[in-house]
Amino acid sequence: MNSIDRLVTLFSKLPGIGKKTASRLTYHILEGDPSYARLLAEQLLTLHDSIRRCSICGSFTESDPCPICTDTGRDASIICVVERAQDVRVIEESKEFHGHFHVLGGLIAPLEGINPRDLAIGPLLNRIKGESIREVILALNPTVEGDTTILYIQNILKDFSIEVTRLASGLPVGGDLEYADRLTLSRSFRGRVKL
Amino acid sequence: MNSIDRLVTLFSKLPGIGKKTASRLTYHILEGDPSYARLLAEQLLTLHDSIRRCSICGSFTESDPCPICTDTGRDASIICVVERAQDVRVIEESKEFHGHFHVLGGLIAPLEGINPRDLAIGPLLNRIKGESIREVILALNPTVEGDTTILYIQNILKDFSIEVTRLASGLPVGGDLEYADRLTLSRSFRGRVKL
Repeated sequence: MNSIDRLVTLFSKLPGIGKKTASRLTYHILEGDPSYARLLAEQLLTLHDSIRRCSICGSFTESDPCPICTDTGRDASIICVVERAQDVRVIEESKEFHGHFHVLGGLIAPLEGINPRDLAIGPLLNRIKGESIREVILALNPTVEGDTTILYIQNILKDFSIEVTRLASGLPVGGDLEYADRLTLSRSFRGRVKL
Repeated sequence: MNSIDRLVTLFSKLPGIGKKTASRLTYHILEGDPSYARLLAEQLLTLHDSIRRCSICGSFTESDPCPICTDTGRDASIICVVERAQDVRVIEESKEFHGHFHVLGGLIAPLEGINPRDLAIGPLLNRIKGESIREVILALNPTVEGDTTILYIQNILKDFSIEVTRLASGLPVGGDLEYADRLTLSRSFRGRVKL
């Protein structure tokens, strides 16, 4: 196996990268400026050392606590609960939310052996007890696992006098009624908005 | 810009990798075993140093001449002319061809400023003069640039007593008449095979 094959094999281990794409990437890098390969290599080598988990919210950060948890300009009374650290990035890019985050690290999925104790639900409760929280937004995927997790957390939080919300489910913007699945259509009816 | 953003930016410079995919790859690597990131980095660092162009055929290789050019088990009287070095890999994987290769390094495209003298056509002629070649297969893409290049090389080679062929064009295997474009259909008619 030569250097090209080795790089193709490594690239094809990444999610969504098949053998053809891995090969195209490898040849692109090979035919390109070696400085790009060097920069990419350097970033890969420093990534795990420079990034850690925020001890408060669990998102990836270079400094602990993370810039979001320490930003006094944000509303600390709202916690947005997400499944994974990368969801923080997606929500931050939408610029729609200006509160704090909490990363669960997964969703409840008994069949896959993921139970509530495997998720950062305990730390979430500690934050709710310790800080003065007014609302918890459960920004989890509208899937079976997401709905199960939402129900579980909703049940735990019902003894606290805080508002618990979930993201609206319905037709995607720019979507087409004709292509909406039955469940999405049903949810968009139940959640219809008064004009 | 933190380490995550820098890696996302670098990945999104690769062909076919948008910002979302770049972000997914980065988080996948971040959440995975650091040893994978290290292996990938090491391959990227050694790639350009370990791979060179074969001085005979122009394909990428670790040793010069390349293993294909030095393989005495292959038919040295047939040269398969390809556009890019990665085409050698694709054809080798098909196990359909057992001769030698010649990489042009591009296709004639006057509008993009790529003229015959920018391609390895001179070296191809030298090989044809020096070695005893019986057939030249022009395995170029059936595009305007490919067809132009085929015509040009065909014209140059007409003074030599060698067979010049091109790959068959027609319906892709598993394809559907209904979805074939007019030109492909027209070529598959003209190139129809007697049963």
